[in-house]
Amino acid sequence: MMLVMSATRSGVTVRSIQEITIFTVGALSFQDLPFHVTPVSEEEHELNNRVPSRPTPELKFELDDEGDTLSNHNSITALLSSKFRDIQKRLKQYGIESPRFRKRLVSKWESLNYDVCENVLYIKEQEKYKSKKWVTLRWLSKWLVMFSIGIMTALLAATIHFVVEKLAHLKFDLIKHYFDDCAKNNCLYQPALMWMGINLVITVAGAALVTFLQPMAAGSGIPYIKSYLNGVKIPGLLTFRAFVAKTLGVVMSILGGLACGKEGPMAHSGSIIAAGLGRGRINFCNGKSISFYSAFRNDHEIRDFMAGGAASGVSSAFGAPIGGTLFSLEEAASFWNQDLTWRVFFSSMVACFATNFLISAINGDPTKLTDPGLVRFNAFKFDLKFDLIEIPVFIFMAVIGGLSGALFVVMNYKLTVFRKRYLNKNWIKIIEAGLVAMVSAAVAFGLMVGINDCTDKAPFDSHAVTAAVYCTDKKHNSLSTLFLTTPEGCLKALLHDPFESHGPVSLVAFVLIFFLLGVWTYGLSVSSGVFIPSLAIGAAWGRLVGIGVAHLMPENPNLQLDVGKFALIGAACQLGGILRTTISLTVIIVECTDDISFGLPIMIVLMISKWVGDFITTGLYDMNVEVMGIPTLPFECPPLCDDLRASDVMSHPLATFKTKEKVENIYRMLKEETFCGFPVIEDDPMAPGKGKLKGLILRNQLLVLLKKKIFCPEGQVPPRNITIKDFRDFYPVYLKVSEIDLSDEEKSYVMDLKPYYNPSPYTVEQKFSLPRVFNLFRGLGLRHLIVTDEKNMPMGMVTRKDLAKFRVGSKRGLVKIEQLKIEDK
Amino acid sequence: MMLVMSATRSGVTVRSIQEITIFTVGALSFQDLPFHVTPVSEEEHELNNRVPSRPTPELKFELDDEGDTLSNHNSITALLSSKFRDIQKRLKQYGIESPRFRKRLVSKWESLNYDVCENVLYIKEQEKYKSKKWVTLRWLSKWLVMFSIGIMTALLAATIHFVVEKLAHLKFDLIKHYFDDCAKNNCLYQPALMWMGINLVITVAGAALVTFLQPMAAGSGIPYIKSYLNGVKIPGLLTFRAFVAKTLGVVMSILGGLACGKEGPMAHSGSIIAAGLGRGRINFCNGKSISFYSAFRNDHEIRDFMAGGAASGVSSAFGAPIGGTLFSLEEAASFWNQDLTWRVFFSSMVACFATNFLISAINGDPTKLTDPGLVRFNAFKFDLKFDLIEIPVFIFMAVIGGLSGALFVVMNYKLTVFRKRYLNKNWIKIIEAGLVAMVSAAVAFGLMVGINDCTDKAPFDSHAVTAAVYCTDKKHNSLSTLFLTTPEGCLKALLHDPFESHGPVSLVAFVLIFFLLGVWTYGLSVSSGVFIPSLAIGAAWGRLVGIGVAHLMPENPNLQLDVGKFALIGAACQLGGILRTTISLTVIIVECTDDISFGLPIMIVLMISKWVGDFITTGLYDMNVEVMGIPTLPFECPPLCDDLRASDVMSHPLATFKTKEKVENIYRMLKEETFCGFPVIEDDPMAPGKGKLKGLILRNQLLVLLKKKIFCPEGQVPPRNITIKDFRDFYPVYLKVSEIDLSDEEKSYVMDLKPYYNPSPYTVEQKFSLPRVFNLFRGLGLRHLIVTDEKNMPMGMVTRKDLAKFRVGSKRGLVKIEQLKIEDK
Repeated sequence: MMLVMSATRSGVTVRSIQEITIFTVGALSFQDLPFHVTPVSEEEHELNNRVPSRPTPELKFELDDEGDTLSNHNSITALLSSKFRDIQKRLKQYGIESPRFRKRLVSKWESLNYDVCENVLYIKEQEKYKSKKWVTLRWLSKWLVMFSIGIMTALLAATIHFVVEKLAHLKFDLIKHYFDDCAKNNCLYQPALMWMGINLVITVAGAALVTFLQPMAAGSGIPYIKSYLNGVKIPGLLTFRAFVAKTLGVVMSILGGLACGKEGPMAHSGSIIAAGLGRGRINFCNGKSISFYSAFRNDHEIRDFMAGGAASGVSSAFGAPIGGTLFSLEEAASFWNQDLTWRVFFSSMVACFATNFLISAINGDPTKLTDPGLVRFNAFKFDLKFDLIEIPVFIFMAVIGGLSGALFVVMNYKLTVFRKRYLNKNWIKIIEAGLVAMVSAAVAFGLMVGINDCTDKAPFDSHAVTAAVYCTDKKHNSLSTLFLTTPEGCLKALLHDPFESHGPVSLVAFVLIFFLLGVWTYGLSVSSGVFIPSLAIGAAWGRLVGIGVAHLMPENPNLQLDVGKFALIGAACQLGGILRTTISLTVIIVECTDDISFGLPIMIVLMISKWVGDFITTGLYDMNVEVMGIPTLPFECPPLCDDLRASDVMSHPLATFKTKEKVENIYRMLKEETFCGFPVIEDDPMAPGKGKLKGLILRNQLLVLLKKKIFCPEGQVPPRNITIKDFRDFYPVYLKVSEIDLSDEEKSYVMDLKPYYNPSPYTVEQKFSLPRVFNLFRGLGLRHLIVTDEKNMPMGMVTRKDLAKFRVGSKRGLVKIEQLKIEDK
Repeated sequence: MMLVMSATRSGVTVRSIQEITIFTVGALSFQDLPFHVTPVSEEEHELNNRVPSRPTPELKFELDDEGDTLSNHNSITALLSSKFRDIQKRLKQYGIESPRFRKRLVSKWESLNYDVCENVLYIKEQEKYKSKKWVTLRWLSKWLVMFSIGIMTALLAATIHFVVEKLAHLKFDLIKHYFDDCAKNNCLYQPALMWMGINLVITVAGAALVTFLQPMAAGSGIPYIKSYLNGVKIPGLLTFRAFVAKTLGVVMSILGGLACGKEGPMAHSGSIIAAGLGRGRINFCNGKSISFYSAFRNDHEIRDFMAGGAASGVSSAFGAPIGGTLFSLEEAASFWNQDLTWRVFFSSMVACFATNFLISAINGDPTKLTDPGLVRFNAFKFDLKFDLIEIPVFIFMAVIGGLSGALFVVMNYKLTVFRKRYLNKNWIKIIEAGLVAMVSAAVAFGLMVGINDCTDKAPFDSHAVTAAVYCTDKKHNSLSTLFLTTPEGCLKALLHDPFESHGPVSLVAFVLIFFLLGVWTYGLSVSSGVFIPSLAIGAAWGRLVGIGVAHLMPENPNLQLDVGKFALIGAACQLGGILRTTISLTVIIVECTDDISFGLPIMIVLMISKWVGDFITTGLYDMNVEVMGIPTLPFECPPLCDDLRASDVMSHPLATFKTKEKVENIYRMLKEETFCGFPVIEDDPMAPGKGKLKGLILRNQLLVLLKKKIFCPEGQVPPRNITIKDFRDFYPVYLKVSEIDLSDEEKSYVMDLKPYYNPSPYTVEQKFSLPRVFNLFRGLGLRHLIVTDEKNMPMGMVTRKDLAKFRVGSKRGLVKIEQLKIEDK
């Protein structure tokens, strides 16, 4: 192989990527790699079709081990990236490198197939449905599925809400009684032990459920959902097991006293409901399943439904139908269309409405319709108005939120890496969860007893559990209203409790402890959300700011009333700093607050806290995605990369098939290569392996064909008894090569790929620029893009990972491009 | 030319399109057209790559007049559509056909170029900016421009608001005094004549301004803005003249007493501000201009800025920053990306905030920040709560809204067609506007005097002008609070006035009159919005429903209080029925109401009124777009079209250039053809005009090259002194062929197109299916898509109009596909 690299004079840019790449190689073993450097003639350079007026110094790399030639000037990148895995492996053998989790992509993550494979079978099937009746029926059934998604998500949300509230109340009531009794009788070790014991048992059960049933159910699931909507296949994410682990798990996490919420997991649960309803099939544990319909079994349709499910989940959690819709659409935005948007919005609205109805029914009167979501910030006893002079205070709070949010992310990142490296055994994970639950109880206990902040202000929630501990005269321990409740109740108390309910010392202690517990909890192997703890931390320090402002200006009694307003702003700042707000998060918070005039300061602080946080580190979810090495595509091609060409980033060489291919070749290729798509080329006996492109066939299709034995001895007509439904039956859990069993005779047969391959895959010419390749991937949701030469012969393949490996960072205000490694793990 | 058509047995579908097409041809002159029908052999059919198992009857059309061959089976559509113009012309010669405005596309509308032309010049320029400093600078300046857009839009909004409110108050105060005096002295003809006179003079001035300065400023501009964001170039839309006509025009329209609002035009004004700031240049009337910077002068950047401008306009009009952002993004949604979204949201928020500040300042206290937009529905004296049992009433109202909205659209459509046919002279347009203004005054006068509905309830707005007319005892004429104010004040009165302020008779009369005036006003040659009149009509009949409900259940006194709630729902229903709500409209109304709990019933009625309305006709804006024949692309390929291929819809034959082309050929081609893009092919002396595709060059580029005389005698080196800035200087008003002046000697020169053409245009293979071509256009914002054959030779070109001509309608619940004609006018 021969490659030419052209270094332009002004190029800080692509050159820098190449430099990094070369440096990595060079530092280790320049001699080890089979290439050497020779100059390139001026003529050859002219061929490269660049600006001819400026002479540029050039290098030429000649590889000894391969014969074919790549004529493009930039292909050093392509070569090196395809050589990367080898280098990485070798590095590991030398024991030099410890894994840098945020500088790599993991090769196991594959892309969804949003593009429809328009092969002959598909066209045949479409013919059948090509009547007005079928079009209308299909349209109606899509709306019906969306409706069901909304209803079922709401049912789930209301059930979880009911169960958690009732059981948590029982638990804390029990503890409170022991507390109050033992404070008098000096047996406080009893409630402490009891609290820790309850937490330990429930949390360990929840952690075991998640760890053994489906580890994908850990955490809030939002980073996974976002990645899925971005177009990455996440195996196990949308299964029945994940559903069970997620829903039961989140109940146990909250009852187990962890600093987590049930709102994030709702988005995941809603998505699973949507995927299940879309597939029309439930898979149970031991391979059994019930199947109802199969019309929507492809990535395209399932992803559309899932957008509705995620939106419904968010909508029932926060009573935010618009925010939920935006949440789904901003990641899957390249596939936004008005029809889908309406359907997503519809299911989101149905979910909100049904949740409202059910929770109102639980609260006594189903026709009142005043609780559209599980958590709301709208119970303020005053109008949320703001004055221009308060804006600077809000901005100051936003900066604090951004900074502390960045700290949260950094600490959690360190912890995550530590966990990945050392706490990767199942039993250790479960023990850690139990430990966190016990420490949560112990610390809360210690604070309540140690600070003993007594107040006589009645808490906002008349059902709240308040313990007196050492307080007398009808007073109660102010921290008990924060700790003897779910994190959600704690948030509500911080927002709505009257002025002087919580003293500054209690609040400072609460912020510190809850911050640390929040960092420790997020990432445990339990089903848990990070929204509520973030909001609670922010509300606590926001309340502190409110108290401070009220003390600075004692002549204004309104400020005392406004302490909840500052708590709300603080909550928004903290959430913005940790998660880095997007449009959808802004809308969710505004909808949750139920007051649009006050939306303006909320939007301002969310934006500022995002900017401040982004200056230091990425957001929490993005950090998660990076650590897992999921190749999500950004919205635009990174800057400074626009003179990279398709041929520079493509994978090369290609594995191709002829239109009539020997079964043996297919079998061997599937076994040896990990590619998911193979170009099909014209069978040219003169130049084997060099024919014109005919189409693209997927690994999954080939496996089904092999499994169903759709082949025959050469010259005979194959028994054509396969339909598109046969392929769908294997969706979404595809076959593995190891499940294929072929006799030697069968291996000598040939397979006619013509009816199965996609006859018009997307292709680009090799000189196509990276930004435009990017647009194609984002705009069309591609999985494979074939790069062809001038004669329409396939040269290479661009996949999601080839693009995702260029990552832009804007740390500390400077634009930075890095090229990630692709690793196996 | 030879074409094969294959009719499948089950195909109601594509076949039906072909049938329609053939029918149109056949009905007129089957002999006239130069083709005859012959059968196709089975072999040829096999070649067509369809399901081979079912034999299909086939027809073959052979054309005598052209030599080349199209091998694709479906190309009858392509042939006929390219023949369409001739047929249309002939039809007109026969005088058979009157123009059917909603069944055609007008050829003058061209596409925007969202795709970047990556020629050598561009790469050269990019090199210069390829440093971190430049990337950051460019990023910052984009944010700065967005900030300025927000501020300037807010300034404009506040100024218009101030001027209109003050002057309207003066006008109506004057009339009121004459009214009250003359009611006693029997000289009521005086206020009537005075009112009509004032209206006539101001409206005629406004209409003359719009008609002569820039007719594009007529109406609300929203259909144009939506089309522009969809990717259609609208000449004159974003000029300084349009700005002047729009802003002064809307002030005059409202002062002239027309039934229109100033909110719709704000979106247009905001867009013009954005385009001006983006281009960095102001063009004055007589060809003079001031230029500041040119870095953003291309369709891509201007469209992004314009999204921010439109969002800012909506945001200042309604105080709806989220709704404004969605408004911009839902049409331009294929280009949604998070960075752009943030910028649009930012400018939208800045506009909202600045408007809030300025209007609060006008109202007395700039720090109160309680007026984020020009119109708000949030002044209810009670909490907007709703009960489940009210939902059926709301749904009933939504159905009414949908039906009456559809009636509005149908009536306005008939009127628009009538105007296009008979009222197309400038002076007639101005007279019509004056007539409407006078009739508005006369009818209002007649109603006030004729009904004489006296009330003693003080109006909600303490500054409202109330006339007593014949009323005594401190009572006033209830209709005077509706007519002696701007339409906006009228809307506020209907929403917020106390129960019994307006009697049922007055309301019925008001609804009827305002509905008819609204229909008549929309489409006049004046700058006017349709939001406010729609809302006012709906609020009036909503109030009627509220009165009815209160009378049905007299035991519930709350219902009397709730009359404003019904008015609000009625307003939403009517607006939804007329405009057909999208997500953005829903959010705008919810933000305007400032109460998210109540957002749920609003969303429900908006959705239902949309469905009911859609069952009968398209929405008002869509109707406008259809009448103007603008080729907007829907979000998805119409159903039933998925076996159409790229070769079926492409324009054919192509005009191509060689990489070194004779100036004479270029000049002649530009003069004779209307194409906007030309494929550049390899110069193959063996087969002239049949070379491999090298790139794509645009008409605008060629015109600039000819103008700048970038050519030389064959064999010489051209004087290469042209940069990308030279092209930008002609943006967006491009040269015309008539402006090119070439000597005979110059015509014999050759032009080297290599540095200028786009070397990697998007291409597809001829068998690419229509849905996927559609995705490419929507997803990438393409203007030209070159269709190539297997040897990479250009066969034809697909443009926006080729796709937009397939229109799907779902009238009366049935899916319907029609193929529009492309006409010159």
